[in-house]
Amino acid sequence: MKKLILAAMLGVSMWCHGQSVSSPSKEITLDFKLIDGKPTYAVMFKGNPIVKTSELGIKLKSGGDLTSGFAIDSVGRFLVNESWKPVLGEQSTIVNHYNQLTVALSQPTGGRRLNLVFRVFDEGVAFRYEFPRQPKLNYFIVTDEVTQFNLTGDHKAFWIPGDYDSQEYVYTETPLSGIDNQKVDMNNGIAMKSLNSRYRVQAPLMMKSAGGLYVNIFEAAVVDYPVMHLDVDTKQFRLTAHLTPGALGDKAYLQAPCHTPWRTVMVSDDARDIVASKMILNLNEPSKIDDTSWIKPMKYVGVWWEMHVGKSTWDYAGSQNAQNNQTGELIASGKHGATTENTKRYIDFAAKHGFDGVLVEGWNVGWEDWFNNWKEDVFDFTTPYPDFDLKAVNDYAKSKNIKMIMHHETSGSVGNYERHMDRAFDLMKRYGYPALKSGYVGRIIPRGEFHDGQAMVRHFNFAARRAADYKLMVNSHESVRPTGYHRTYPNYIAAEAARGNEFNAWSTGNNPMHETILPFTRLLGGPMDYTPGVFEIKMSAYDPTKKEQVHTTLAKQLALYVTMYSPLQMAADLPENYEKHPDAFQFIKDVELDWDDSKYLEAEPGDYLTVVRKTKGKDTWFLGAVTDEDARKSTIALDFLPKGQKFLATIYGDAPDAHWEKNPKAYKIRKIEVTSKSKIDLNLAAGGGTAISFEPK
Amino acid sequence: MKKLILAAMLGVSMWCHGQSVSSPSKEITLDFKLIDGKPTYAVMFKGNPIVKTSELGIKLKSGGDLTSGFAIDSVGRFLVNESWKPVLGEQSTIVNHYNQLTVALSQPTGGRRLNLVFRVFDEGVAFRYEFPRQPKLNYFIVTDEVTQFNLTGDHKAFWIPGDYDSQEYVYTETPLSGIDNQKVDMNNGIAMKSLNSRYRVQAPLMMKSAGGLYVNIFEAAVVDYPVMHLDVDTKQFRLTAHLTPGALGDKAYLQAPCHTPWRTVMVSDDARDIVASKMILNLNEPSKIDDTSWIKPMKYVGVWWEMHVGKSTWDYAGSQNAQNNQTGELIASGKHGATTENTKRYIDFAAKHGFDGVLVEGWNVGWEDWFNNWKEDVFDFTTPYPDFDLKAVNDYAKSKNIKMIMHHETSGSVGNYERHMDRAFDLMKRYGYPALKSGYVGRIIPRGEFHDGQAMVRHFNFAARRAADYKLMVNSHESVRPTGYHRTYPNYIAAEAARGNEFNAWSTGNNPMHETILPFTRLLGGPMDYTPGVFEIKMSAYDPTKKEQVHTTLAKQLALYVTMYSPLQMAADLPENYEKHPDAFQFIKDVELDWDDSKYLEAEPGDYLTVVRKTKGKDTWFLGAVTDEDARKSTIALDFLPKGQKFLATIYGDAPDAHWEKNPKAYKIRKIEVTSKSKIDLNLAAGGGTAISFEPK
Repeated sequence: MKKLILAAMLGVSMWCHGQSVSSPSKEITLDFKLIDGKPTYAVMFKGNPIVKTSELGIKLKSGGDLTSGFAIDSVGRFLVNESWKPVLGEQSTIVNHYNQLTVALSQPTGGRRLNLVFRVFDEGVAFRYEFPRQPKLNYFIVTDEVTQFNLTGDHKAFWIPGDYDSQEYVYTETPLSGIDNQKVDMNNGIAMKSLNSRYRVQAPLMMKSAGGLYVNIFEAAVVDYPVMHLDVDTKQFRLTAHLTPGALGDKAYLQAPCHTPWRTVMVSDDARDIVASKMILNLNEPSKIDDTSWIKPMKYVGVWWEMHVGKSTWDYAGSQNAQNNQTGELIASGKHGATTENTKRYIDFAAKHGFDGVLVEGWNVGWEDWFNNWKEDVFDFTTPYPDFDLKAVNDYAKSKNIKMIMHHETSGSVGNYERHMDRAFDLMKRYGYPALKSGYVGRIIPRGEFHDGQAMVRHFNFAARRAADYKLMVNSHESVRPTGYHRTYPNYIAAEAARGNEFNAWSTGNNPMHETILPFTRLLGGPMDYTPGVFEIKMSAYDPTKKEQVHTTLAKQLALYVTMYSPLQMAADLPENYEKHPDAFQFIKDVELDWDDSKYLEAEPGDYLTVVRKTKGKDTWFLGAVTDEDARKSTIALDFLPKGQKFLATIYGDAPDAHWEKNPKAYKIRKIEVTSKSKIDLNLAAGGGTAISFEPK
Repeated sequence: MKKLILAAMLGVSMWCHGQSVSSPSKEITLDFKLIDGKPTYAVMFKGNPIVKTSELGIKLKSGGDLTSGFAIDSVGRFLVNESWKPVLGEQSTIVNHYNQLTVALSQPTGGRRLNLVFRVFDEGVAFRYEFPRQPKLNYFIVTDEVTQFNLTGDHKAFWIPGDYDSQEYVYTETPLSGIDNQKVDMNNGIAMKSLNSRYRVQAPLMMKSAGGLYVNIFEAAVVDYPVMHLDVDTKQFRLTAHLTPGALGDKAYLQAPCHTPWRTVMVSDDARDIVASKMILNLNEPSKIDDTSWIKPMKYVGVWWEMHVGKSTWDYAGSQNAQNNQTGELIASGKHGATTENTKRYIDFAAKHGFDGVLVEGWNVGWEDWFNNWKEDVFDFTTPYPDFDLKAVNDYAKSKNIKMIMHHETSGSVGNYERHMDRAFDLMKRYGYPALKSGYVGRIIPRGEFHDGQAMVRHFNFAARRAADYKLMVNSHESVRPTGYHRTYPNYIAAEAARGNEFNAWSTGNNPMHETILPFTRLLGGPMDYTPGVFEIKMSAYDPTKKEQVHTTLAKQLALYVTMYSPLQMAADLPENYEKHPDAFQFIKDVELDWDDSKYLEAEPGDYLTVVRKTKGKDTWFLGAVTDEDARKSTIALDFLPKGQKFLATIYGDAPDAHWEKNPKAYKIRKIEVTSKSKIDLNLAAGGGTAISFEPK
């Protein structure tokens, strides 16, 4: 009886096998249908199919699959239109506006129930599977998810291989029919790969149809569930969810009531709608941290890039020598980067230039054979090397008003990290560290688990929650790519979880297109600690035999501080390199990290991106524009500025002869007075960029 | 050069393929031989072969096996004759006396090195594999161990199935040729079984040859290595080591320098030598805890047996109902055992009768669906049920001078326990708990790991070490069976790790033979928390429909306090049952837990055991005698008592008409005056026993 009333109240036509729900704008429509007892959905945009009829369902280890034999029990609908304020973000207020359709299904044979919940936003659709509390389904094991995305054509796609352990690939741009992991250069500097299918790619998968529609498939709120990769049928253009397995090959261990993450399909005829979308964040739970006053943006330098360029080492006793030495004792190599003295040098530099923090990697015992050995007891996260005086460093930092950023490399030995986590966080509180950078290079222990499996998803979220207990901010590297959990735990301030700038120092590097794709993929899920700001572009500066280089101009490195949103930003390069270019360095010193608003002015995945952001609580604006390997000219109208006010625009651009490979360090800085009626011509070199600060006069 | 000098110093004949080493008594000889490059050994006792030529070696995942192609590099020998004092034990001083032979092997092809180290004691031999620091072997994965024990005949054996997850079986007594796990009744109350071979048994394996020799095969100092089970060739009487696998099927992940546990073969023509042996303890490392003043024996009662007999429940909301309820909220069933009020009743009882401690199980949230669900977040180890007031209970206990024993059931979710361990131990320190009982019922998480695998061995040892950081004593249930680690961490005070008394309450129970075998098997590795002292033998007392019963007489329950050595002893039964038998209860109140010396007067595995122990630092003695299903008479000479001193012997014996099944509660207590010249006739009923206290007059 209750069910009937509910249905009536919600104006539902029951016993109907098909249901539709549209976006508030009416431009996007999702159709749900039971076809012969099998749940399916389809998505239309402005009347054109985007996702053709596609199957839905979950396979279980026992008791029968939740894929067919269904009848509709009831249907519920509602509209949400609300707004909320993120602690830190690209904008101070986020609107959450969608229509929801809930279809309650049951299997007359077997008596199991499954709800499908669809939300349609103006930027796309999201749906998830919900397993209500029910007598016939309590604990259960998911062996597969059959969710399909049956696409309408051979779209252009920007893809990386569906690796269970790494997202640190450059993107390949091909039609869907051209996806093939065997085409990918695997000599790419990735330490740890687990790839077992030629036609599997990762989400977010950014695509563009022949008709000019931008389509993005991703997921949101991955909590207690594995990461979804996508198996590609390169002939039918059908994508199928592939969940990362655990050690035993099972996908997820669940207990009802529970639900899967949201599966998302964003669609627009304007690429800017995709990068600007807050749909992924909206699909996550609100903050569970009441007092967020301790969560603050941080701009930092660190003892870090000098190891990447080979000037010093993480380890104290030798250079990443995995062979243990004759005596087992540590003998200083003299090349250790994380010394008290060197750290003080960085603290001095940070204080002089107004940075918030200093990161030190390699401060703690364990780096001599930390990597690639599947070793369990690598680090204890509390024992410094003999040449790193924890107390002296922290006292000195305090005296200079600099916050130290703790570093916890786990080497993939996650059980070991969890065993030591309370002690490690206690140590941080004792010395006043407000934030930590964690690392997960290497094969996971518990052995058999993958970085993208349910167990590790649980770990990364657990680490954020436990850090919140101590009021610590987390920036994880080599972790699961974020899917908006930082809305729920805003102290999960950033992650790497994609190919960062570091690869430019010692591998084939990141092609000039790379940073024009990340905002359409990785950044949809959360801020990335990309570590921009490298001024000494070519590694031959350190060693004439080296061919590696950063694949951008110096000006583009500045622009990345704006285009790659993160409330945690590193100035990655060495102090001495910044001191050679104080004029360009001024932008890094000035740029803000937290925003009232952001406007994407130009965007095309794989080609270019221009964004302007207004500082939170201040009348300053910062613009970043980047291009791929092609030089680019455009004209930007400054109508985002408040009317009638004069601003000093400082434009950090590529010099006319700049080129990411041939002449990367050629930049030109000019200052002009502008108003909201002004226009600025952008001239981006090949692999170049422009950064602009606007200050009221 | 150094090698040659060493060899010369030690009087070694190099380049010889055979080496012998004998026990200090000369009765046992071990021969090592390289046969076609394969290492082998054989053991003789008084000139007769005990272990015929048997292969040795380790198989590796990569780089070739360490099983053949060896040459002898050098041979070293030395004699050790020392003594040491355990913190708690069966005797205050332990003699460690053996001859050691070290054979350094290398593979000319491949260049890898392996040392075999043999120790020959008067009670048997021990050997282990050592992997020295070497350029060609750093990190490595053991896939198998080929250690053989090539026995000389179809010995009688007391065996339990080679299960990776449980040792909670009753023993089966057959010749080696009769070993077959398909013969074992699996409807035996064991919650979690992992058995995949018909002919695999567990160590310690106790045997008796047709010629009357007692042979026991076990291992010592299992640290960072899996448990060894034994694959039985029932025709050739050859046992082969079978290591418990990890989640991926590999056996051990190691880094040189390191070594395996000791493999042991004890042999004697007197069964008493086996039960009295301290060889397993001697093979472990000395204590790593400097200040051991906080490690103390404890006699305790607890809110525990009442759950086993069905009087109350562990959980607050229902009786082990794994189906979550409609609302997900806890609703009191009214049968919860661990209430503040009930706990105070036990504290009162403990204080009145001079016990040290009170255990409370079911005090913390999580028991509603704790078991059999492979659930990860079952317990947090810190949140009490609403009807258990942690502070009030502990304040009350303190006022009565009673120590509370904490309970940590993990439900096999070990990663979860490790994540919470520091917090759980902090809580204990805050309230003054000196000891904890941990439990590991159920399938292990990390999933795919077994209770007996390397990962779990590491966990159990880690738990002891971390508890030592907090000065806490540990008593683990459903853990790996001990192999002497309590010498190294004496706070690892006891373990269950075999079929305990609890099985008598709700399963087929423990046959009367059971307690006559455990001292020859499980107890060789360390103290067992068997939880004796059940006076209400038959479960029909609680529920007339119940057929279950304890398979001993009441008097035998008393004797177990002496025959089953442990410095942690529970009086398992309910206070009201003890109050019905205050005269018999007196023995439990009187019996001591820590000893200056122990003498095994009579022993035959599977038949009977009589031991007498002298209290540490006091002139009191306690004797325990147990028999199997056969009644037994014997006469004990009291020549262990000091000469010339009179003692009051209080004899707690079976009544003449006692019988474990027909009349178990019939006991008789008599007091007599004795001296070292006296003799006492023991009259043990079928399934019976006798306990005696000797106090100086």
